[in-house]
Amino acid sequence: MISPGLGTPPGQALLARYMAVRARTDRLTAPLSAEDQVVQSMPDASPAKWHRAHTTWFFETFLLRPHLPGYRPVREEYAFLFNSYYEAAGPRHARPQRGMITRPDCAAVGEYRAAVDAAMADLLREPSAEVAALVELGLRHEEQHQELLLTDILHALSLNPLRPAYDPDWEEPAASGVATMLDGPEGVVEIGRAGPGFAFDNETPRHRAYLMPYRIASAPVTNGEWLAFMESGGYGDPLLWMSEGWAARGAGEWEAPLHWERHDGAWMGFGPAGLKPVDPALPVRHISWYEADAYARWAGKRLPTEAEWEAASALPGLRDATGVVWQWTGSAYRPYPGFSPWAGAVGEYNGKFMIGQMVLRGGSLATPPGHAGPTYRNFFPPGARWQFSGLRLAEDVA
Amino acid sequence: MISPGLGTPPGQALLARYMAVRARTDRLTAPLSAEDQVVQSMPDASPAKWHRAHTTWFFETFLLRPHLPGYRPVREEYAFLFNSYYEAAGPRHARPQRGMITRPDCAAVGEYRAAVDAAMADLLREPSAEVAALVELGLRHEEQHQELLLTDILHALSLNPLRPAYDPDWEEPAASGVATMLDGPEGVVEIGRAGPGFAFDNETPRHRAYLMPYRIASAPVTNGEWLAFMESGGYGDPLLWMSEGWAARGAGEWEAPLHWERHDGAWMGFGPAGLKPVDPALPVRHISWYEADAYARWAGKRLPTEAEWEAASALPGLRDATGVVWQWTGSAYRPYPGFSPWAGAVGEYNGKFMIGQMVLRGGSLATPPGHAGPTYRNFFPPGARWQFSGLRLAEDVA
Amino acid sequence: MISPGLGTPPGQALLARYMAVRARTDRLTAPLSAEDQVVQSMPDASPAKWHRAHTTWFFETFLLRPHLPGYRPVREEYAFLFNSYYEAAGPRHARPQRGMITRPDCAAVGEYRAAVDAAMADLLREPSAEVAALVELGLRHEEQHQELLLTDILHALSLNPLRPAYDPDWEEPAASGVATMLDGPEGVVEIGRAGPGFAFDNETPRHRAYLMPYRIASAPVTNGEWLAFMESGGYGDPLLWMSEGWAARGAGEWEAPLHWERHDGAWMGFGPAGLKPVDPALPVRHISWYEADAYARWAGKRLPTEAEWEAASALPGLRDATGVVWQWTGSAYRPYPGFSPWAGAVGEYNGKFMIGQMVLRGGSLATPPGHAGPTYRNFFPPGARWQFSGLRLAEDVA
Amino acid sequence: MISPGLGTPPGQALLARYMAVRARTDRLTAPLSAEDQVVQSMPDASPAKWHRAHTTWFFETFLLRPHLPGYRPVREEYAFLFNSYYEAAGPRHARPQRGMITRPDCAAVGEYRAAVDAAMADLLREPSAEVAALVELGLRHEEQHQELLLTDILHALSLNPLRPAYDPDWEEPAASGVATMLDGPEGVVEIGRAGPGFAFDNETPRHRAYLMPYRIASAPVTNGEWLAFMESGGYGDPLLWMSEGWAARGAGEWEAPLHWERHDGAWMGFGPAGLKPVDPALPVRHISWYEADAYARWAGKRLPTEAEWEAASALPGLRDATGVVWQWTGSAYRPYPGFSPWAGAVGEYNGKFMIGQMVLRGGSLATPPGHAGPTYRNFFPPGARWQFSGLRLAEDVA
Repeated sequence: MISPGLGTPPGQALLARYMAVRARTDRLTAPLSAEDQVVQSMPDASPAKWHRAHTTWFFETFLLRPHLPGYRPVREEYAFLFNSYYEAAGPRHARPQRGMITRPDCAAVGEYRAAVDAAMADLLREPSAEVAALVELGLRHEEQHQELLLTDILHALSLNPLRPAYDPDWEEPAASGVATMLDGPEGVVEIGRAGPGFAFDNETPRHRAYLMPYRIASAPVTNGEWLAFMESGGYGDPLLWMSEGWAARGAGEWEAPLHWERHDGAWMGFGPAGLKPVDPALPVRHISWYEADAYARWAGKRLPTEAEWEAASALPGLRDATGVVWQWTGSAYRPYPGFSPWAGAVGEYNGKFMIGQMVLRGGSLATPPGHAGPTYRNFFPPGARWQFSGLRLAEDVA
Repeated sequence: MISPGLGTPPGQALLARYMAVRARTDRLTAPLSAEDQVVQSMPDASPAKWHRAHTTWFFETFLLRPHLPGYRPVREEYAFLFNSYYEAAGPRHARPQRGMITRPDCAAVGEYRAAVDAAMADLLREPSAEVAALVELGLRHEEQHQELLLTDILHALSLNPLRPAYDPDWEEPAASGVATMLDGPEGVVEIGRAGPGFAFDNETPRHRAYLMPYRIASAPVTNGEWLAFMESGGYGDPLLWMSEGWAARGAGEWEAPLHWERHDGAWMGFGPAGLKPVDPALPVRHISWYEADAYARWAGKRLPTEAEWEAASALPGLRDATGVVWQWTGSAYRPYPGFSPWAGAVGEYNGKFMIGQMVLRGGSLATPPGHAGPTYRNFFPPGARWQFSGLRLAEDVA
Repeated sequence: MISPGLGTPPGQALLARYMAVRARTDRLTAPLSAEDQVVQSMPDASPAKWHRAHTTWFFETFLLRPHLPGYRPVREEYAFLFNSYYEAAGPRHARPQRGMITRPDCAAVGEYRAAVDAAMADLLREPSAEVAALVELGLRHEEQHQELLLTDILHALSLNPLRPAYDPDWEEPAASGVATMLDGPEGVVEIGRAGPGFAFDNETPRHRAYLMPYRIASAPVTNGEWLAFMESGGYGDPLLWMSEGWAARGAGEWEAPLHWERHDGAWMGFGPAGLKPVDPALPVRHISWYEADAYARWAGKRLPTEAEWEAASALPGLRDATGVVWQWTGSAYRPYPGFSPWAGAVGEYNGKFMIGQMVLRGGSLATPPGHAGPTYRNFFPPGARWQFSGLRLAEDVA
Repeated sequence: MISPGLGTPPGQALLARYMAVRARTDRLTAPLSAEDQVVQSMPDASPAKWHRAHTTWFFETFLLRPHLPGYRPVREEYAFLFNSYYEAAGPRHARPQRGMITRPDCAAVGEYRAAVDAAMADLLREPSAEVAALVELGLRHEEQHQELLLTDILHALSLNPLRPAYDPDWEEPAASGVATMLDGPEGVVEIGRAGPGFAFDNETPRHRAYLMPYRIASAPVTNGEWLAFMESGGYGDPLLWMSEGWAARGAGEWEAPLHWERHDGAWMGFGPAGLKPVDPALPVRHISWYEADAYARWAGKRLPTEAEWEAASALPGLRDATGVVWQWTGSAYRPYPGFSPWAGAVGEYNGKFMIGQMVLRGGSLATPPGHAGPTYRNFFPPGARWQFSGLRLAEDVA
């Protein structure tokens, strides 16, 4: 998972980074009670406690067991309880049953984290390049779970009729203003990661693609623009929707983004700070790919492909490429030409999900700072709505 | 819900009884962590925290709001969150979503209980007959939920691969020995409740029934007898089963009672004390009506009707009528002739469930002492297995 | 299945009766195209062609194979295709897949019927008492399927937006007039079959029951009365319904009996003659037990038990006991005291369905004349609506 | 739907082609009984009779109604019954209920076809360019349904335990021999349709793509190769499968291609000629994308993208590009850059299905001759198995 030129940080720096990432997870769970941490609101989501334990299991399984001589696992059963989907790492607890694990309780999971952290400190005194690379992967992995922890708990809290806030002081991003259409690069371009530094396997190899002429919006679609779509009947016109999307819309009774609800005629949105009036200047989020696609058709435009998005990501004038909302693209999540998954057990990390999902680009306000760059490929099924997912428009140049 | 001759206890005695029942609930939840208390393991079960809050809501709704002048509800939203199924009491939270209520947390529910208890102490200074009667109902209601709380948490803990014990010191009942067949009363008998003292509406009115000659077993079927049924292929012979039961068996992959699992060739049972070897001398439990019915056919016998059971319940030699396991009968749960539900909102208590369920008689080791007598009618759908449900055999006299 | 005193008809008379019953089936299918005969509109229903073949299979399996020396089955595969649910008769085709059997086609099934009829004529030259008894059962069985054939094809045709008529000349029964409440017999009564003549095992043994004082309506509830229930909001008031019924109503979006639809403000009913205005004077039909029960509660009455119904069936003034609509009772379908299923393979006929169903009494306009008498027990799950099922009211005498 | 240079055939030639395509449909249904034609074996499949009527509806709706003055529809209700999914053409019958339409019967649908054919002959005396273009689309549409009619009836017949043959004389393709890996074109290529002649909108516009170096197999994977995959445990190793595919495999209990069954230790395949031994020399078919993908991984290769497939389709040495089996590609079905659906009601033809499906290329032995060329894009969800779908391998050049 490490490109050839990776400059492994010396052990001390790596340990500092390890501790920082781990502490960030703890900060994220600090506002949550033990009860908040145990529930699983749907099979796609996981309990906060599980996220805390699973990220710890990752280090125990792929670092401590094979690489720290004499390491004794905290508790053998955790290998079963906290494996997510690694077939090569043995059998595991059924995903939809994660919310039934009341024991070990939160405190015990905290002890698990502490014990693994202590052993990791040991291991990181003189890490080999392989260990360093795996630690880096484990940290990126934990960062991914930090975002999921937030979206999952937001979903769980949204099902509570009391609509409790995750963090009343949560700050929303600044508005990015009205969008214009920018000319994107065309012809043969290169996309994907190369060169030094960590990269996920799915970002590689860097390769050539051909882009026909297109334009891309300078900013994501806003809540205000989405309201116009709603008010013009966008959720009720089958001709705007993919056939499968129209069925999903009907089955889910969608008439607005997820987490929106109407109170006394006004739309409110449930977010980490609780239930607040929808701000028309902010980017819309919590929409499925189906909705993004229908919106784009209504607007006479389309979603960019991921190659277009990546090639345009550094264009002057393009705003909020990262750090605000994930942006659905028109590209299915498939391997790049020449793709090869990592060797060993971590080879299951990305490759086996490359079907039935659409690529999102950018990163959201819930993505850990520095985690997602312009080549980063996020992916979810087209009906997923509980992520911080929005869209940016594109169009063909005739 | 009170038969004419009820001698209402004076307020002080009633308050003492109130406090005792309420305290028993608290003792039952004492071994449970906050996480244990929030989970809902299936739509039929409820979280322990919900049981604690719902029983409190019952007093608040049917006693304090209408009868305590100036009473101010602890929190208006609780009326929505903790109503179980009373249509007349307004809208309510969807039953399968009870496990999503992480807030109010356990501590807040404890405060809710304390606040209602304080107000109840106020109300019970000089209770009217109507208030006293409703309080008695509320206490019986809470006792019913005490048993459900136990069976529900047992089910939740059983889904944890760690098989944690609810209470390692839980004591099982004594064995009741080998059963013989006793002649039951025949001809016209009277069943149902009459006379002074509390009675549930479904136990009334006392009425006549005609019993053809029959015999009834002096003791419930034991684990050892059940093992013989299993070993002779009872779970694999469709001719022993009701058609619907055979389908349920297949869908659920039943091959033993619920909570049984085989370890190294030996059957273990999961109970409140954790996972223990199955004791062949103890009554079998955690079986569905379908299984009880198939067993009886295999044994060349049948289940008693509820009238037979009740008429025979005081026969000399009949053991473990109450307090050990609930005993499935051959009777569907339907109203007695002349039945009329209680007036007012509590009229929904029993009547609306009188379809699709079978009657169980007796009471189990989880039933609060004194709660269930010989006329008591418990009821569950024929596929339910998570209660402490066993069986007692009967047979026709040719 | 034969009570001791049965006077077996001589072979010739039995053959004549055999041919008459078989011919009646053919007349019922005459209006149906090959396409009409192959479809299965829901798992509970069966194709007309299947009914024709299955009733033939019954004679082949229980009469010809064991009792006619040298008989060679028409086609071995039919034993698999046309067994309904007899475990003892070997494996069988999955019930929900019956509509996939396009081959053998209708003509081949006609040939199957003819071949079995010819062999039966042979067998019936000198039938033993056992054979005669089984033939009688086979004919009663075929009569039962005649009614099912009609209700099943009516359901299938009702799903066709063209609403094609089964038989445009079908005649509805005469109206039976306004109902009064009649005093029923009380105290110890005898119900069930005894004495000579054919009886289904589920009607036996005749036994005593005790009836508390009650009254029973002289006629079934009419469409006009049902409309009053609808207009007064009966389908929208949860307090009138069993909890399970209220859920079924919601899931099925019931707002009127099955096969009713509103056209230009008027209610039309789809019946064998096609879509016709609902006649307020005729008995209501195509209602579930849940609806019947809710109606009775709305009317301040209740459903009679089957013992009450049977004891009252010959009361002077009681009309339309049989031959118009099946009448839901308040009794769950359970074995009579002393019940014992028939010996041998036909023992699966009735006994294994004695759970989860409610008893209907009477017989409908689709029941073959003479088939169902006052002791006849029909049974369906409480949510079933596609039979010709209505209700007759009863009430307690205080 | 017509590229600019289309030379519209004169009316007479078009009419001749019209009659030929229509007659081919009739020949395909000739072996089917009325019963065969009415059944719908799963929601994804349609009855043969429906295919015959729907293709006729297409001409009636898009040609006769708008373009033949004075045309009177055969029956107004057919607009509802036989519309497939065209929202702009009005409401339609629910897809999963197509198998309930026993009336109109086969003969009536034959009359519908004849009446529309007669009117079409009228219209085609002097067709405008628009009419000619729409007729050509209607014929291509009917050709597509010809293949579906075959795959759908094959599926329906496969559910019959008698395994009846569609056409005992059906001829399988010739074996294409052992595959070698051929170098594919690399760099900037052009794919998609341009220039004269009919093209589906989804094949356009012709555009540039960039291909990294790759090789492609000269022939499809054979049954013999597939057996080797099966025997080496391919269906049991999760590391070969996409996560979603592994779940589909488990849910469907897949252990071989669809329509394969083992008899006395040998694999038989059910095809149009009935149940026959699997011929190891022939291309494998009736596999899902998931299986194709797993096979490719097992073989150390991958599926080609659709651009690779198209660019390589005319390579010397490449065999069975068309006419034998459809070949799953690694490409999700998405619009080409610059894609724009046809104007008007036929705009729903392809565009709204461009999500959740994978592209297949080539055409099968069931595809009408001449229908599918090298730019033709077929598409099905990754779990679909009832089409004549196989695969051709590809690999990266390092």
